[in-house]
Amino acid sequence: MEYKNDRVSGINIAYIGGGSRNWAWSLMSDLALEEQLSGNVKLYDIDFEAALLNEKIGNRLLSRDDVKGKWAYKAVKTMAEALEGADFVVISILPGTFREMASDVHLPEEYGIYQSVGDTVGPAGLVRALRTVPMFAEIAEAIKKYAPKAWVINYTNPMTICTRTLYEVFPDIKAIGSCHEVFSTQELLAAMLKEMKGIEVASRDDIKVNVLGINHFTWVTRASYKHIDLMELFKDFASKYYETGFIPNKEEYDAASYFRCSHRVKFDLYKRYGILAASGDRHLAEFLPPWYLKDPETADKWGFGLTPVSYRIERKKALDEKCKRIVNGEEEFVLRDSGEEAVREFKALLGLGDFVTNTNIPNRGQVEGLPHGAIVETNALFSFDSVSPVFAGKLPFDVQSIIATHVANQETIIKAALNKDKELAFRAFVNDPLVTIDIDKARELFERMLKNTKEYLPGWDI
Amino acid sequence: MEYKNDRVSGINIAYIGGGSRNWAWSLMSDLALEEQLSGNVKLYDIDFEAALLNEKIGNRLLSRDDVKGKWAYKAVKTMAEALEGADFVVISILPGTFREMASDVHLPEEYGIYQSVGDTVGPAGLVRALRTVPMFAEIAEAIKKYAPKAWVINYTNPMTICTRTLYEVFPDIKAIGSCHEVFSTQELLAAMLKEMKGIEVASRDDIKVNVLGINHFTWVTRASYKHIDLMELFKDFASKYYETGFIPNKEEYDAASYFRCSHRVKFDLYKRYGILAASGDRHLAEFLPPWYLKDPETADKWGFGLTPVSYRIERKKALDEKCKRIVNGEEEFVLRDSGEEAVREFKALLGLGDFVTNTNIPNRGQVEGLPHGAIVETNALFSFDSVSPVFAGKLPFDVQSIIATHVANQETIIKAALNKDKELAFRAFVNDPLVTIDIDKARELFERMLKNTKEYLPGWDI
Amino acid sequence: MEYKNDRVSGINIAYIGGGSRNWAWSLMSDLALEEQLSGNVKLYDIDFEAALLNEKIGNRLLSRDDVKGKWAYKAVKTMAEALEGADFVVISILPGTFREMASDVHLPEEYGIYQSVGDTVGPAGLVRALRTVPMFAEIAEAIKKYAPKAWVINYTNPMTICTRTLYEVFPDIKAIGSCHEVFSTQELLAAMLKEMKGIEVASRDDIKVNVLGINHFTWVTRASYKHIDLMELFKDFASKYYETGFIPNKEEYDAASYFRCSHRVKFDLYKRYGILAASGDRHLAEFLPPWYLKDPETADKWGFGLTPVSYRIERKKALDEKCKRIVNGEEEFVLRDSGEEAVREFKALLGLGDFVTNTNIPNRGQVEGLPHGAIVETNALFSFDSVSPVFAGKLPFDVQSIIATHVANQETIIKAALNKDKELAFRAFVNDPLVTIDIDKARELFERMLKNTKEYLPGWDI
Amino acid sequence: MEYKNDRVSGINIAYIGGGSRNWAWSLMSDLALEEQLSGNVKLYDIDFEAALLNEKIGNRLLSRDDVKGKWAYKAVKTMAEALEGADFVVISILPGTFREMASDVHLPEEYGIYQSVGDTVGPAGLVRALRTVPMFAEIAEAIKKYAPKAWVINYTNPMTICTRTLYEVFPDIKAIGSCHEVFSTQELLAAMLKEMKGIEVASRDDIKVNVLGINHFTWVTRASYKHIDLMELFKDFASKYYETGFIPNKEEYDAASYFRCSHRVKFDLYKRYGILAASGDRHLAEFLPPWYLKDPETADKWGFGLTPVSYRIERKKALDEKCKRIVNGEEEFVLRDSGEEAVREFKALLGLGDFVTNTNIPNRGQVEGLPHGAIVETNALFSFDSVSPVFAGKLPFDVQSIIATHVANQETIIKAALNKDKELAFRAFVNDPLVTIDIDKARELFERMLKNTKEYLPGWDI
Repeated sequence: MEYKNDRVSGINIAYIGGGSRNWAWSLMSDLALEEQLSGNVKLYDIDFEAALLNEKIGNRLLSRDDVKGKWAYKAVKTMAEALEGADFVVISILPGTFREMASDVHLPEEYGIYQSVGDTVGPAGLVRALRTVPMFAEIAEAIKKYAPKAWVINYTNPMTICTRTLYEVFPDIKAIGSCHEVFSTQELLAAMLKEMKGIEVASRDDIKVNVLGINHFTWVTRASYKHIDLMELFKDFASKYYETGFIPNKEEYDAASYFRCSHRVKFDLYKRYGILAASGDRHLAEFLPPWYLKDPETADKWGFGLTPVSYRIERKKALDEKCKRIVNGEEEFVLRDSGEEAVREFKALLGLGDFVTNTNIPNRGQVEGLPHGAIVETNALFSFDSVSPVFAGKLPFDVQSIIATHVANQETIIKAALNKDKELAFRAFVNDPLVTIDIDKARELFERMLKNTKEYLPGWDI
Repeated sequence: MEYKNDRVSGINIAYIGGGSRNWAWSLMSDLALEEQLSGNVKLYDIDFEAALLNEKIGNRLLSRDDVKGKWAYKAVKTMAEALEGADFVVISILPGTFREMASDVHLPEEYGIYQSVGDTVGPAGLVRALRTVPMFAEIAEAIKKYAPKAWVINYTNPMTICTRTLYEVFPDIKAIGSCHEVFSTQELLAAMLKEMKGIEVASRDDIKVNVLGINHFTWVTRASYKHIDLMELFKDFASKYYETGFIPNKEEYDAASYFRCSHRVKFDLYKRYGILAASGDRHLAEFLPPWYLKDPETADKWGFGLTPVSYRIERKKALDEKCKRIVNGEEEFVLRDSGEEAVREFKALLGLGDFVTNTNIPNRGQVEGLPHGAIVETNALFSFDSVSPVFAGKLPFDVQSIIATHVANQETIIKAALNKDKELAFRAFVNDPLVTIDIDKARELFERMLKNTKEYLPGWDI
Repeated sequence: MEYKNDRVSGINIAYIGGGSRNWAWSLMSDLALEEQLSGNVKLYDIDFEAALLNEKIGNRLLSRDDVKGKWAYKAVKTMAEALEGADFVVISILPGTFREMASDVHLPEEYGIYQSVGDTVGPAGLVRALRTVPMFAEIAEAIKKYAPKAWVINYTNPMTICTRTLYEVFPDIKAIGSCHEVFSTQELLAAMLKEMKGIEVASRDDIKVNVLGINHFTWVTRASYKHIDLMELFKDFASKYYETGFIPNKEEYDAASYFRCSHRVKFDLYKRYGILAASGDRHLAEFLPPWYLKDPETADKWGFGLTPVSYRIERKKALDEKCKRIVNGEEEFVLRDSGEEAVREFKALLGLGDFVTNTNIPNRGQVEGLPHGAIVETNALFSFDSVSPVFAGKLPFDVQSIIATHVANQETIIKAALNKDKELAFRAFVNDPLVTIDIDKARELFERMLKNTKEYLPGWDI
Repeated sequence: MEYKNDRVSGINIAYIGGGSRNWAWSLMSDLALEEQLSGNVKLYDIDFEAALLNEKIGNRLLSRDDVKGKWAYKAVKTMAEALEGADFVVISILPGTFREMASDVHLPEEYGIYQSVGDTVGPAGLVRALRTVPMFAEIAEAIKKYAPKAWVINYTNPMTICTRTLYEVFPDIKAIGSCHEVFSTQELLAAMLKEMKGIEVASRDDIKVNVLGINHFTWVTRASYKHIDLMELFKDFASKYYETGFIPNKEEYDAASYFRCSHRVKFDLYKRYGILAASGDRHLAEFLPPWYLKDPETADKWGFGLTPVSYRIERKKALDEKCKRIVNGEEEFVLRDSGEEAVREFKALLGLGDFVTNTNIPNRGQVEGLPHGAIVETNALFSFDSVSPVFAGKLPFDVQSIIATHVANQETIIKAALNKDKELAFRAFVNDPLVTIDIDKARELFERMLKNTKEYLPGWDI
């Protein structure tokens, strides 16, 4: 790397899952819009062809006038090649295919267990984790070997388990987990300010939040805009929209369908616990006993959608086609600020300016009352070659109980996955709050789910 | 006190709840059978007449030939009188009357919540605790004032909450909570040894157990008889009797009815968690989601009884009559080893011989993973003027999650009770695993239960 | 308070020790230079006349054209008056007079114990603390009563003990301890950059440091300027100037005399521990066994001065005269940025912009390995109505051992002071690393020192 | 192993250091006197001949009438042979020869550092540890491989570091460190009871002590005989004999010379800290700044001896000759209760009866305020296949500070030894309280000491 006039050139980024249409494109766009950085991106993907297409898309940007950051993209065939010399590693992979994901999400429905997303907790999150942990163990080993000093940003779900696996396998890794759910919460608070007070917020950065918890089940205990206490305001807001939900744009809401969220779950949780859950309702509902996910009607009543895997398949297909068109030059790759923060984080880690944002890293006490070492989400100070958590305090006793159960489950799932220990995995399975069915039925479902994902569980006794 | 030839005379015991027919009589009997100790017992009860009857029964023993330990009993009208000069304080009170208890246990049934005992957790345990905490706060203040150096043994339920309140109000108190549930488990293991191996165990003391958890939800992670590993044996035992339950004496079992216990819950928990729950099934079932307490039929299927308060009323009546007969000399007070350990504990604390037994005291780390200060049950070394916990280790992650939730609830209930904070109490109420009904129904039940116990909640906004 | 266009008016500041010539004048100057804030400052001092003079000086500023921040000053006769309605409280008092301080610093010299400052640790720090703790206990009680929600900034030494006393007496206080020693270290690093690399640093803010430890014995484990690792550079720097010390301006250094510092102690500590001590050498030397303070010659050899109290008396006299001249209009009060951060902190706490700086607050885990609750110095995020520590990590084992001993001593001194417990205070006295004399001599010195400060230890058995 | 009528036969013991004349003979004697146990002892020693002599001595016992426990002894040539099939492992080795020990103890004298024992802390303890740690690492690896379920009893010094190394290398090891220093303290308390009260104590077991700290620097915070508080009595005792020391038998004391101990150090420490140091004065003095070890005269004034290595050499020679005589049948091996507790511990671990005694095991909270995992000495409950620490509480702040420094040093020494990290070892060296000389002198001494022990530090850069 070379520093000159507050610009850094020659940066090497390794992208694991470099065939991705989603996160990879976001990063390409953000890099292109940032003038202080330039360098090389190596794209590694088990689907090499996909990486190759992204290489083409990426390199095509070099010649465009509206591109400020100049990056050379290269698809590579091994993780080693991608990692060697890397200053940053980005991980966004899909563990398994949508076939496995369909089993994760929909088979439990036969047993009366409904899941709105299915990538974090619940039976789906657990089985997905069993597939993912060995992949992340492999990635961690490779980073230890080829790029031990690189900063690693993970986007893959289940976020907490993936990031925790990196630290379990390579304790000295410099890894963080990044997720935009809290950003949406800041935007919700900005919308609330407009709705309730007529105040326009210039940027979501101006909404200051103290976040703590675990990814997708993160909570806000303090929020302010300048000198305005937003938690006080949220009380009125939650009460005003408790019955109807907060739906500023009905058309958009209806169109969103599988992703729709009226914040009614958030309002109900505020009523119960007095603090603000900082994630989409679809995620929140999955961490709790089946209060909001008893059945599709209940979810509908609470104003949020269940996302079927069939939809994800369709969407993937659309993206694949879009990809082809871009590669063929039939469509232009549109640059836009993705809203993700990886590039901003790169800059701080390179010494180009400190900033504070939320991130997922091991608990060193930033969340009081949760185990040390567990991956928690709080604010952290990003500075030159360092990410230091900001102390976030303690959760209310009841929220903490629920989170502690999930943390214990997550630790157990990782241990089970690393040791291919089916009985241990089952212990975590029946300990999930969504699993309220009797133990024999649970056993049957568990065995069937494992069978469906068997291909990704080599060495397991299934 | 005077020490002479390993005998101690002039010991002063304060008995709070000294009108009790149950625990008081047990203590009288045990004291009478122990030749190394003698002195005075002051009986304090809000029902002074009841204490007076016990005074008569106690003093009548003085003249009997079969009585080795000589004690003078005296009913007193104030707690101060009882405590002044006390070396030991025994507490066994009934917080409220059976009228309140009937509401605690049976009103939730209207909402589909069944409770087999109703004195520890669940809606009944919580409301009972709200009544009890202020009484224990008052007792703790009095001990601090009149007998700060006395050793205090509590028998009252909810054991954990009562004992914790003593320490909350008077942190330097020397208090323990005593309970016989673990002894029964030792007896069950002895019965198992006989059943499975034909070995007769001379005394339950020979069954060594490593216990840990919270009262009535205590667990055994190691058990041995001489060199025999009883946990290994229990695996076979649990499997052999999983379907039928272990009922050595069918007649006794049927007669027990409301108190019956076939250990099927214990066997099922062993299947889930691989360790032994060291309490009666009626207690165990109440700590969990309604797996075993969905309805009376489910409880019956699992081989344990629900104890109606009507039965307790009848039994009380019978004891009252028995009491009268004894006072009138129509019936003799029968001396028998009660199986309780208070007297043995007195002796160790007086320097007459160390021993190790299970007890309820603040966690100083003896149970890893549970909060410091929470009242936990483990073994402890009783020695001259000291009770030192023995390190018991860590519970499996899933059992620990459940206990941690109850510990958090118990701390919350105490805080709510001391501050008369209804909203906080409600938070604990809906956080109890037995409460799976929706939040509005829960609110209604809670309010009705509080109204029924209103008399014992002065200063509350009900 | 009123917010308008990012300006806040009507702020109330209570200044305890408002007759100060030093800190009070700095604050006046900084407030005058800040255009976003305005309001009232109440000056409370046990020397009311001194406060009155400051009132005059302060109010005279109102009419000056170069003053951007408009503040009304008022001397008040009681702490209550000062505190009522206060949004901020600033504390800078002198505990006792220079007569007591002379005994603190110089009497130990008769016993071979030399102290370069005498306000933090060592015999002088301890005895000063015994005087100060009751004053801070009184202040804490008053804040609890009159301004429980105010933010409190303490400048008084011994910083750690003063701030800890505030929290001991009023656990919910929102107090921080502010000290500029770390700023000087940032300036030293900037000077080093110039010296070693020819780089001019625009502002000390651009020197990023990870600080941790206790006040006046704070350490830097990471330091950077943009992407330059300053810890690496410091290694060469320390080695280059190890023998001579780093004295950029010989004249200034010689003139400083009693305050001079060549950083040789810092260089030696770097050699021992591999990290950077972030305080003046005069302070650092006092925390250690008498390696650098064996006698005045040793101190001189290590290139730092001992500050005699006679000098402080002279300086005070000069300031008193200056004060008179200003009040009489014979001299103008010169506005200059004091380098202190109180005003910047006010702004962040008022919601006018977050920033990160070092501060002294209770350890909630930000320094691993030191006790929770101890007052530690690390970076913290200042935001609207909140100060959240940034995690700073762990000290090397040997530095941690030394600090842990001082932390234990500080806790003990506070307990001794609050309970007027002479024996406990003596335990801390002989446990100080500077006290290597034998125990009988130590006892004699201790008793003599207490006698000399007797007037400020009412109720003690001296 | 076979259990029959409360006797166990077929027990396998591996003795590492089986050529020892000291500990091995004690064990042989104790085994011979115990009728409930029998089996085989494998003797492994790097000096095979020495082990062979012990084999002969041991087997000769088989035919004697006064021998109740029958054991077959066998010298073996590899650790593997000794360990395979072992139920118990005993370790008592001499790390290096007396030549190295002479350098450890006496070279520092040239620099003004005196050491009374030289096997635990100080420069001698540190260098001895550097030799020993790799040996214990090797032993731990072998136990992990050949006897992972065996109970391991270590007698080797530095006790804490040796035992900690076992756990560092094989965390699941079942190892304890055994030491008789606390037993001597119990005997001192018994002697005190006789002296002060005329009470004869039947057995040191009747003296109940609450011990806590680290080996050779263990402290007693509670002590009782029946109902008598011995700590109260010790106050008078320490005061009565403060000046003269307590020397019940002047002749014996004079004869002991190099090992003599008048308990004056203990009395002085009681004066400082109010608790009882439970070790010989020669050991205690080495943990502190050179208060008692300034020079030989100071030690003499405090009534304890410095043990020269020349004496150890002589004593070894005498034992070697005695050994020959016994092997040749010229002298009979005398059976006597050694006062050590290994055999008693074997019995408890085999299920033949629980008991409580002091032992050295990892801290799991039994000593509050010291790091988890550090090897601490407290009471523990020995039961079937388990050793569970009894909670011992917290040390006074000043004693804790000293111990914490040593614990940090010990952890550092182990890390340095395992990584052959000379600089780290030097950090621990200069952090020892006995090392008050300046850093260049310290460096010189350190280098010379390492050179003298070079043969045992393969792979080090010396």
